[in-house]
Amino acid sequence: MDRLEQQMAFIAEIDKSKQVFRRNWIMDHSRHENDAEHSWHMAVMAMLLMEYGDAEHYDLLHVMKMVLIHDLVEIDAGDTFCYDEAGYLDKPEREQKAAERIFGLLPKDQREEFYALWREFEAMETPEAKFAAALDRMSPVLCNFHTDGGTWVEHDITYEQVIKRNAPIEKFSPKLWEYFQKKLLEYKEKGYFKES
Amino acid sequence: MDRLEQQMAFIAEIDKSKQVFRRNWIMDHSRHENDAEHSWHMAVMAMLLMEYGDAEHYDLLHVMKMVLIHDLVEIDAGDTFCYDEAGYLDKPEREQKAAERIFGLLPKDQREEFYALWREFEAMETPEAKFAAALDRMSPVLCNFHTDGGTWVEHDITYEQVIKRNAPIEKFSPKLWEYFQKKLLEYKEKGYFKES
Repeated sequence: MDRLEQQMAFIAEIDKSKQVFRRNWIMDHSRHENDAEHSWHMAVMAMLLMEYGDAEHYDLLHVMKMVLIHDLVEIDAGDTFCYDEAGYLDKPEREQKAAERIFGLLPKDQREEFYALWREFEAMETPEAKFAAALDRMSPVLCNFHTDGGTWVEHDITYEQVIKRNAPIEKFSPKLWEYFQKKLLEYKEKGYFKES
Repeated sequence: MDRLEQQMAFIAEIDKSKQVFRRNWIMDHSRHENDAEHSWHMAVMAMLLMEYGDAEHYDLLHVMKMVLIHDLVEIDAGDTFCYDEAGYLDKPEREQKAAERIFGLLPKDQREEFYALWREFEAMETPEAKFAAALDRMSPVLCNFHTDGGTWVEHDITYEQVIKRNAPIEKFSPKLWEYFQKKLLEYKEKGYFKES
């Protein structure tokens, strides 16, 4: 197939991200957030919050690319709720298969670029991937702050689970973590978390 | 107010983009697309289609930033349908006011950056802004291709209106324009446009 036709087929395929709904709510609490919206929000947050990072240098374009495409595999694999331990068991396998099919729609060079970006995001090792992981944690926490505890309350999540889940924020930036920790403690005091 | 608090207030404010609905449909034709989804889709398209551009050099990060924030003013100003001539009369004024309020939530340096990006997008003069404008045109055209003519059919749009509206695609890339023109002619032959 012609290169441009492959790219256009991919652009149409990823439209489905707009119908992959996450557990968390958008901030007006009217409906669940979808993957396209979540990825957009993370990319704008990247522009605003890079200054808090601990690493000497971040390639912001690289961070943007990673966050924009990090959830495309969920078109096939579905969203796995971050506190769903059973769902996490076969998540790597489901997502690997999805990555092969979805990125496989692209011309070879772009397929390799997208696949590499996704692998890098998942591995959480480079400074950019650590930043992206922190954004991926902050985004739903902020949604929960604006929706009376949102998914924490609905799914009986403990304070300890939230602290453990959000450790990547601290790895990216102790200063940002201090902000979130303080807020999380306030929520704890207000009784938003299940007793552990 | 503390810098981080200002940034967090802005991040919460722009969540409202997820509830600003455009005229065009998402590609499964189930509902209208919102600004956050539209901006995300444009940013991924930028990664894929930059190679077709006519300019010698594009700063892809700059393009990404512009497309990610280009519609934030619609939180206050609302989405103006691109074929709504009356709506376009006071669009600059409504959007200027919106830009001042919304970007005004940010710390001064970031406020200036976001405002400058938005002005650059609107002016369509730099290579990056021309690319962003082309993406902004291609996105709803592709949605219409996947929804039986979508907004063109619903709003009695003529072929000539569509050709005029989408001129920025040709300015960015004659090759991409050739692709779109061929498709648009097919839609014309199928009777999707109002007779002019």
